[in-house]
Amino acid sequence: MTFKRTIWGSEKWRLDGYELQKPDGSMVETAVVRHPGAVILVPIDENGDVLMLKQYRLPLDQTILEIPAGTRESKQEPWEECAQRELREETGFRAERFTNLGLLWPLPGTSDEELTLFMADRLVADPLPQDFDEEIEVVPMPLDKLCCMALDGRMQDMKSCVALLRVQAYLNQQLND
Amino acid sequence: MTFKRTIWGSEKWRLDGYELQKPDGSMVETAVVRHPGAVILVPIDENGDVLMLKQYRLPLDQTILEIPAGTRESKQEPWEECAQRELREETGFRAERFTNLGLLWPLPGTSDEELTLFMADRLVADPLPQDFDEEIEVVPMPLDKLCCMALDGRMQDMKSCVALLRVQAYLNQQLND
Repeated sequence: MTFKRTIWGSEKWRLDGYELQKPDGSMVETAVVRHPGAVILVPIDENGDVLMLKQYRLPLDQTILEIPAGTRESKQEPWEECAQRELREETGFRAERFTNLGLLWPLPGTSDEELTLFMADRLVADPLPQDFDEEIEVVPMPLDKLCCMALDGRMQDMKSCVALLRVQAYLNQQLND
Repeated sequence: MTFKRTIWGSEKWRLDGYELQKPDGSMVETAVVRHPGAVILVPIDENGDVLMLKQYRLPLDQTILEIPAGTRESKQEPWEECAQRELREETGFRAERFTNLGLLWPLPGTSDEELTLFMADRLVADPLPQDFDEEIEVVPMPLDKLCCMALDGRMQDMKSCVALLRVQAYLNQQLND
């Protein structure tokens, strides 16, 4: 497998083409997404609810329920800096505490994208302007209800399912320690 | 947001470019992955273990632990037909029963890809040749251990985390019914 060319690029990510030899000797081009990584966030408000988003998503042409998330400016941007910016842009709050709950790969067969999951709490109102191409409504919801939805199939956004279940497990473990 | 061009395509998926107007009036191209969908599978063997895969993934340049999965031939391919083929190719077994545990979106901000999750059991040896570009080792592992790994961060493949936790919840509910 040999790197051949960059097929497309934006400010955030690019698509690279690789040459791959098939068993019959012929060559085929395969493509890999090169991505700076993104944060996924579970913000917990003063009532213990999760700040969920209702957000229009062009690829699906529908408004979906999901947690806040956002792409790093570059591979050099510190994860927590990205987390604070995206939280302020998407929910209007900053967090005084971020708890790192691990890395995740959303599409390891196609992309090198890594997601870092943070629980964000001790929230203080401190909004940043939203990105011009985002339409977002913030909806506080109980964590346990969201985790049921993640498990029974009512929640379809994959990052939200994993993130909420990890946060629930983390909080339950804290209670038992 | 207006469709502009197809940037790249393979047999399986393509990248479409859309024109988007920025607040200052200038235009920017944004890209959306158009995908036929894929199955993600939790195969349970006669001992109650999950058939996990150790598979080399080029985008990450490492061998990762994940569940079997595979892309549909087209949007018209029935999900269960795709599930049976991918299971045979990747594990060497066919399943006499598939239980549909819901849809998931791996990257709703970038791609219209939908994943359908099946638990697969009542397995019978019935291999198909592996895809030429795949290097796969099958490893049976206990479901409860895998679910701990999904929750505590040792498992990083996102589809595997959600799928295993949904299967565990489904099996626990069956026991309680």
